[in-house]
Amino acid sequence: MKDIKIFSPATVANVSCGFDVLGFCLDTVGDEMLIRKTENKGIFITKIEGYDLPLKTEDNVAGVSALALYEDAKPNCGFEIEIYKKIKPGSGIGSSSASASGAVYAINELLGKPYNKTQLTRFAMKGEALASGSEHADNIAPALFGGFTLVKSTTPLDILQLPTPSELYATIIHPQIEVKTSEARAILPNHIPLKDAITQWSNVGSLVHALHINDYELLGKTLNDVIVEPYRSQLIPSFDAVKKAAISIGALGCGISGSGPSIFALSKGQKMATRVENTIHDVYSKTGIDFYTFTCKINTEGIKVI
Amino acid sequence: MKDIKIFSPATVANVSCGFDVLGFCLDTVGDEMLIRKTENKGIFITKIEGYDLPLKTEDNVAGVSALALYEDAKPNCGFEIEIYKKIKPGSGIGSSSASASGAVYAINELLGKPYNKTQLTRFAMKGEALASGSEHADNIAPALFGGFTLVKSTTPLDILQLPTPSELYATIIHPQIEVKTSEARAILPNHIPLKDAITQWSNVGSLVHALHINDYELLGKTLNDVIVEPYRSQLIPSFDAVKKAAISIGALGCGISGSGPSIFALSKGQKMATRVENTIHDVYSKTGIDFYTFTCKINTEGIKVI
Repeated sequence: MKDIKIFSPATVANVSCGFDVLGFCLDTVGDEMLIRKTENKGIFITKIEGYDLPLKTEDNVAGVSALALYEDAKPNCGFEIEIYKKIKPGSGIGSSSASASGAVYAINELLGKPYNKTQLTRFAMKGEALASGSEHADNIAPALFGGFTLVKSTTPLDILQLPTPSELYATIIHPQIEVKTSEARAILPNHIPLKDAITQWSNVGSLVHALHINDYELLGKTLNDVIVEPYRSQLIPSFDAVKKAAISIGALGCGISGSGPSIFALSKGQKMATRVENTIHDVYSKTGIDFYTFTCKINTEGIKVI
Repeated sequence: MKDIKIFSPATVANVSCGFDVLGFCLDTVGDEMLIRKTENKGIFITKIEGYDLPLKTEDNVAGVSALALYEDAKPNCGFEIEIYKKIKPGSGIGSSSASASGAVYAINELLGKPYNKTQLTRFAMKGEALASGSEHADNIAPALFGGFTLVKSTTPLDILQLPTPSELYATIIHPQIEVKTSEARAILPNHIPLKDAITQWSNVGSLVHALHINDYELLGKTLNDVIVEPYRSQLIPSFDAVKKAAISIGALGCGISGSGPSIFALSKGQKMATRVENTIHDVYSKTGIDFYTFTCKINTEGIKVI
């Protein structure tokens, strides 16, 4: 195999209660990447369509991730990367993570799969560090593993693949405003009330249980963030109105996707997810802020060869 | 049915990472209680053997719990309670909880089971409040439901029953010192570092996952408490030495049982659990503090009619 074309999906990190550890993978929406073996050694970004991003390998999230793998594998060839960027950078649905994990996934395939998914996550985290300043895995893991993932720990890196209820659909609204990950991090307190932390870890445990027993109602009750959302929701206009409307109409839960500004809702069944999408579309139409919405199934495969 | 005799088990709350929400039920060690219907209306504690505890209904944990149920059910009879107390009060393995949950379980049986286990938990929490000053359910839930439980929330009360790996054994060491629950609560900070809370909720989620997929190794890695143990372990002489020895010999994990002073370890298989017991027995023999140890399977049934 000399070249490979992949679909690298958007992802939702945090999932309300699981700040920095939980994530799930979206279907339909994602970047496309074409990676080609070359005789010239090195990693070369040869084309980026969709958004204006740096072509220099060391300045590009996909480039840095690919380099991390490349320097470890030391193959007797190089790689050219073409990126067809569909996920807007800074949207909060894992744009940098899609580039980072897509690059390492594709090169691993072309090299005959010398690395497992956890090792690929480690390489892609180098790209995330370039994008956000910290090596987090909560978007990388669902992109590479698919479905719901839990980052048990980053040192050593330990990713758990959680089950995904089959009728679960996500609705996303992306208000076209900028929320910098660094700003969204800076707004958080260093210390939190113990009683709130207890609520949060009880919800994380309950969410994992709900996924295992396929209990949609319980899942909905666990999608509650008493720690991060009260701060970060201030950065997203009409967040409360969107959340209230989504839940009133029948969404299981609704929260901030990653560090925002995108908002996600989870619903049982496509019909309900579409109703939720229509409802939050109506709510946001009144804000005067540009936005788009979409609804999709949870993607249990992660990155796909196309 | 006019009378019933039950075994009400000891329990381990918190389970390292799950402060205030996780618990599991022990086998073999527990109180026995005989509850008898009477024509005289009211709740009467007629006998307590084993430890010196108040006979007055309103001052007794079992009495208060029974009264809470009794006042709700308003039956056309009364109940006499005999308590054969085997679990030492203040040991940290759910002594008050065994009395509280045993009383409500038995009376519910004699009344033809008008209440479900969650409702019984609510009544028994009144007894816990008498014992510790707060209506917590992390010992009550495993006593009534058996196995591992997660208190999703107390308002409204929502108890989740988690799966129990079949080869899981607990080892308990009870140093005969007094650690008051109130003191063990007071030593905790009101605020905790966000980064520690993240570690904790990732462990809670991972522990629930480990129970579902029967992964003993992962379970061991989740038995880690970065929040409460650093404070409370100061109240238990040689805690660190016991923990280190238990894990070195092969225990999956080791931590404080409830608010202490008892220490629990979990092991895969009875043979390993017994080796762990012998090891920590040796460690504690050097302290000059009286103690006892025991090893048992996880009790997946909870309270049993005998």
